[in-house]
Amino acid sequence: MPANTFGEIFRVTTFGESHGKAVGAVIDGAAPGIELCEEDIQKELDRRKPGSPGAASSPRQEDDAVHILSGVFEGKTTGTPLLLLIYNKDTRPSDYDDIKELFRPGHADYTYLKKYGLRDYRGSGRASGRETAGRVAAGAVAKKILTQRGIHILTYTLRAAGVSCKSLNPRAIEENPFRACDNEAAREMTARAQKLREEGDSAGGIIECRVAGLPPGLGEPVFDKLDAEIARAMLSLGGVKGIEFGAGFAAADMKGSEHNDAMGNEGFLSNNAGGILGGISTGQELVFRIAVKPVPSIAKPQKTLTIHGEEKEIRVTGRHDICICPRLVPVVQAMTAIVLEDLYKRQEAGKA
Amino acid sequence: MPANTFGEIFRVTTFGESHGKAVGAVIDGAAPGIELCEEDIQKELDRRKPGSPGAASSPRQEDDAVHILSGVFEGKTTGTPLLLLIYNKDTRPSDYDDIKELFRPGHADYTYLKKYGLRDYRGSGRASGRETAGRVAAGAVAKKILTQRGIHILTYTLRAAGVSCKSLNPRAIEENPFRACDNEAAREMTARAQKLREEGDSAGGIIECRVAGLPPGLGEPVFDKLDAEIARAMLSLGGVKGIEFGAGFAAADMKGSEHNDAMGNEGFLSNNAGGILGGISTGQELVFRIAVKPVPSIAKPQKTLTIHGEEKEIRVTGRHDICICPRLVPVVQAMTAIVLEDLYKRQEAGKA
Amino acid sequence: MPANTFGEIFRVTTFGESHGKAVGAVIDGAAPGIELCEEDIQKELDRRKPGSPGAASSPRQEDDAVHILSGVFEGKTTGTPLLLLIYNKDTRPSDYDDIKELFRPGHADYTYLKKYGLRDYRGSGRASGRETAGRVAAGAVAKKILTQRGIHILTYTLRAAGVSCKSLNPRAIEENPFRACDNEAAREMTARAQKLREEGDSAGGIIECRVAGLPPGLGEPVFDKLDAEIARAMLSLGGVKGIEFGAGFAAADMKGSEHNDAMGNEGFLSNNAGGILGGISTGQELVFRIAVKPVPSIAKPQKTLTIHGEEKEIRVTGRHDICICPRLVPVVQAMTAIVLEDLYKRQEAGKA
Amino acid sequence: MPANTFGEIFRVTTFGESHGKAVGAVIDGAAPGIELCEEDIQKELDRRKPGSPGAASSPRQEDDAVHILSGVFEGKTTGTPLLLLIYNKDTRPSDYDDIKELFRPGHADYTYLKKYGLRDYRGSGRASGRETAGRVAAGAVAKKILTQRGIHILTYTLRAAGVSCKSLNPRAIEENPFRACDNEAAREMTARAQKLREEGDSAGGIIECRVAGLPPGLGEPVFDKLDAEIARAMLSLGGVKGIEFGAGFAAADMKGSEHNDAMGNEGFLSNNAGGILGGISTGQELVFRIAVKPVPSIAKPQKTLTIHGEEKEIRVTGRHDICICPRLVPVVQAMTAIVLEDLYKRQEAGKA
Repeated sequence: MPANTFGEIFRVTTFGESHGKAVGAVIDGAAPGIELCEEDIQKELDRRKPGSPGAASSPRQEDDAVHILSGVFEGKTTGTPLLLLIYNKDTRPSDYDDIKELFRPGHADYTYLKKYGLRDYRGSGRASGRETAGRVAAGAVAKKILTQRGIHILTYTLRAAGVSCKSLNPRAIEENPFRACDNEAAREMTARAQKLREEGDSAGGIIECRVAGLPPGLGEPVFDKLDAEIARAMLSLGGVKGIEFGAGFAAADMKGSEHNDAMGNEGFLSNNAGGILGGISTGQELVFRIAVKPVPSIAKPQKTLTIHGEEKEIRVTGRHDICICPRLVPVVQAMTAIVLEDLYKRQEAGKA
Repeated sequence: MPANTFGEIFRVTTFGESHGKAVGAVIDGAAPGIELCEEDIQKELDRRKPGSPGAASSPRQEDDAVHILSGVFEGKTTGTPLLLLIYNKDTRPSDYDDIKELFRPGHADYTYLKKYGLRDYRGSGRASGRETAGRVAAGAVAKKILTQRGIHILTYTLRAAGVSCKSLNPRAIEENPFRACDNEAAREMTARAQKLREEGDSAGGIIECRVAGLPPGLGEPVFDKLDAEIARAMLSLGGVKGIEFGAGFAAADMKGSEHNDAMGNEGFLSNNAGGILGGISTGQELVFRIAVKPVPSIAKPQKTLTIHGEEKEIRVTGRHDICICPRLVPVVQAMTAIVLEDLYKRQEAGKA
Repeated sequence: MPANTFGEIFRVTTFGESHGKAVGAVIDGAAPGIELCEEDIQKELDRRKPGSPGAASSPRQEDDAVHILSGVFEGKTTGTPLLLLIYNKDTRPSDYDDIKELFRPGHADYTYLKKYGLRDYRGSGRASGRETAGRVAAGAVAKKILTQRGIHILTYTLRAAGVSCKSLNPRAIEENPFRACDNEAAREMTARAQKLREEGDSAGGIIECRVAGLPPGLGEPVFDKLDAEIARAMLSLGGVKGIEFGAGFAAADMKGSEHNDAMGNEGFLSNNAGGILGGISTGQELVFRIAVKPVPSIAKPQKTLTIHGEEKEIRVTGRHDICICPRLVPVVQAMTAIVLEDLYKRQEAGKA
Repeated sequence: MPANTFGEIFRVTTFGESHGKAVGAVIDGAAPGIELCEEDIQKELDRRKPGSPGAASSPRQEDDAVHILSGVFEGKTTGTPLLLLIYNKDTRPSDYDDIKELFRPGHADYTYLKKYGLRDYRGSGRASGRETAGRVAAGAVAKKILTQRGIHILTYTLRAAGVSCKSLNPRAIEENPFRACDNEAAREMTARAQKLREEGDSAGGIIECRVAGLPPGLGEPVFDKLDAEIARAMLSLGGVKGIEFGAGFAAADMKGSEHNDAMGNEGFLSNNAGGILGGISTGQELVFRIAVKPVPSIAKPQKTLTIHGEEKEIRVTGRHDICICPRLVPVVQAMTAIVLEDLYKRQEAGKA
């Protein structure tokens, strides 16, 4: 049953496979009258693009040029659906001939075959990270609108390959190949990534997201709470294995008197809640972190099965990232923007 | 904008406030022809009920008798909506007169007022844990259907008040007041809870859920993946601050060669993924854990504001749990059942 | 797959069977802060109730007392779900023992059995007109809100038993048993209905609805246009076999120069369109008519089959209306109100 | 609020404006494993295309070549979204310079401006009949699947320009420019259309649709009944002003003993119901008719207003149809196919 649409008022539908003809998104529900051009979207897509210089990234070359094929007239949105289309160019389906009949460990090969009865083996098909290009394109539109509302989303790698950032420097994020918030930590991450590449192995990490400027009141009890929607959005991303808000898992060991955020004349005196109470934004900074598993495509030999049930050894070669965190950062930001714009509109819609 | 409905094919709508006249749920989409009586639901509600003997629970007395008012004929579901109604009895709105104009730290008082422009101050109104009675009632129906499909959900407190279970003994769960999977750990939890009660404080914990018997193929890419739907369901519960699947946050520090689950003739050789690849069930055990914050209602004095913006000290007395984990266990199980039955039906619906 | 919910922002879910324990509705999405009491709803339910004096109605006695069990606090809506519950009292399932194994011509007996594999034979179960009590209860809330917005819905029988109203007198509507807009025509309708009752037969008719005060802009292209949503709502009512807007079927024979509504300084110079252009309200009066089939329950003998496939003769006796139009009038009004309040909110939600 | 998606399991989202860059559709929910190529879709699009030889059609030239850009692998659907894209070629926005500031009578110019605050004046933008190209493309996929299920949809002009078909000859439909089911009637229609063109006027008509091979059980009570969904789909088409099922409006004047379809050993003995009872298919032929208004673009002078409120005379010249019925026939068929495939899947999904 279909599930390629996200959102209730700001609705995003993504389409496309890794080595098919195109990927992209339809946005249904962007308000009319918003200035929008392809460059607004392109600059976000460029951040997601493979081929960035660090050791962390895959060498696949895509210019990822976006085309807005509907919904804009005389430079403004009309309130009708926006089709954002990105043609695939650097497709090399033959790269996948070797693994056509193998289940790659840590990939969705086995489950897609079980679910759909067939499998697009070309670079994971729909399960590929390439699907997120459509999310980033749609998120760019949401982000532009949110910026006009005074809402800003900061997203960065907090930890990767076992190395944590020690400081939070927003400027650092676009200065290092890990999109880490600490350039020094990023250097250590890069060194470890290089070593892992030599070993034919890969790394995971943690991404953190902080949103400033959110008004109180966003989030729809009881099922579409702010944290519930963010969690759904994040866990819908390949490779994400967990999420926590504010104090997160550490809250499990705190006392009520430690965790509760007291209030004074200036408002809340702390933010263990991560900016959410009862599933609704408090107006404080929204804070969450996601756990990202190591990239499953590794050159080291692994045990696996063929689609016919025979045991085989597999070594996944080709164009792969060592750690997906840096390329996931703009995707996390995009999905956060989509969730927030949707909940913003839903909150407006709920009023009398 | 409304958000009191969960699910696409097995759809559950909950209603009701803590100190209003009733709580409950409508299920739209239970298949026709299923044997169902009130006792099927009552036994699950009784597990959620306040007043269980341990130090961990609140003394509010409710018999929580469920009435099936539609959708069943001659002992079987007809395929039409099931109304599951539970009247509130032991309501004492006057208990809340003291806090009528105060924002209780850690509660949704402030955000509800900001969102809706008014607030039902009687025991948190809709934000109360009592809302989950409707979820448990609906979950009981899902659970009954899943059991017939051979799917079994085990849920328990894994850690509370800083104490972790050392073993996983399914029988222990209903033997101790923490619904912990280890009776010895539960004794230590109880001792700590007693001490916290004396201090006017409270505790958090971690709940784990394991599902056996899931077929491969459940979960709907790209947005309603199995993990995304479970995460949404869990974060829609009050007090839950995080979720992780399989190796979870630990995966962030693993190498690909460590985290990938290799395959052999017997199937998967490990389960770091927690039974999910690409957002689709693998057929292995589904495993996840949630972080539960300490109960925010504490007797210790806290700084807060009145709704008029004046600083005040607050002590939240009345009938409160010390740790919500044991009462959350059946709710987690219920929401898991709702998600799984819905995804089961969606997977069937997706076939040609 | 479930379909007992109508609306996107003002969402109504109905439940209940004719001879089950209760019928009613949950409204999710009524704005917070609206004054609401049971009497607001009761007065509309009383209009739908069986037992009105005319020859047209069935003698089933129900007081149809509505209970608001959630969503209202201190006399105002809180923005949380409203449960509107009506217990069934005058149920006589044994009245249906005779027809338990027969397919009544013109009823849903055959199709329900084919669809669900079982059938609640007590007075049509969910397919009964009694289901509309929930719609009327929910519609009463929508109607109250719309009245505050200056939107008024006039609904009446335009034709019944072959007799057409010659004038449109709004006051007449509640003065005659057919809810016709012309008392003189109503007298003729009553006479014909009496004759049909003696013959063991029944009548159909046409209901017209006119809405004043609608702002321009309601209706959501391209699928949830104003006319599309009204049509869906009306055809979801049992016994309705057609709908037309403005000039309706007569438009098929008009020339463009006759049908187009020209504009002058005062606005539109005619209203052949029925107040809708491109699926969006023009701000003129919304006008539509529905065709209502004759009541299928007739005392005259008819050929039919048993559920085992044997031919039988059937005479449907019991408590039946001769013409459903008068009791359908408040239901048509209720559904129109639900559609309009939902589209009103959706139009607001679409703005930047 | 967005409304460019139709269907629950077989979900179709359309996008694109008349004189924008492209139109088309995304289908989310086509089952995996269905053989599908562009030719399957192209042949249906060719039927909708302008420029057919009869007097009834507009001379705009579009090759309307469809591109399947995702969702198909090795000639089969994969269960992931299908993007069906049609580039606009023969766009002449300058044709619309004259009417840029005028509200064309019978068009959506006024209501779009009121709704969205701006208007794409190029050939009606999104309100153009060109939007239906996306529906026809998506409907082609639905139609292919339904044909494999043994379900066949026959659609034709029953009446146009005041001329009714006297016989129902399926072969005639593609033989005459009106897609009428009677070639002789079509000749008379053509003659009248020619005369109307000379007068600068236009015509309306009635389209009938008959579906054979439907199993009993399709349609989802109580809101998504078969007739409710068909009615919504039809009224979502520009120019449609009414719909009736089976005996339709004539049923209003029938007695119960005349309208009821009795049953005998061979099944139903008549089909006044049009193949639907209680909103569910009976397994008989599904029969409905829609009323189509005359084309609003006429050369005759009409009174109107400018967007600044000044009175003006308007003559709509350019490339316009005289009667939209023949081009609407494939669109009606496409929307019917989309509704039926969706309800077919929903019926399957409702089973245990």
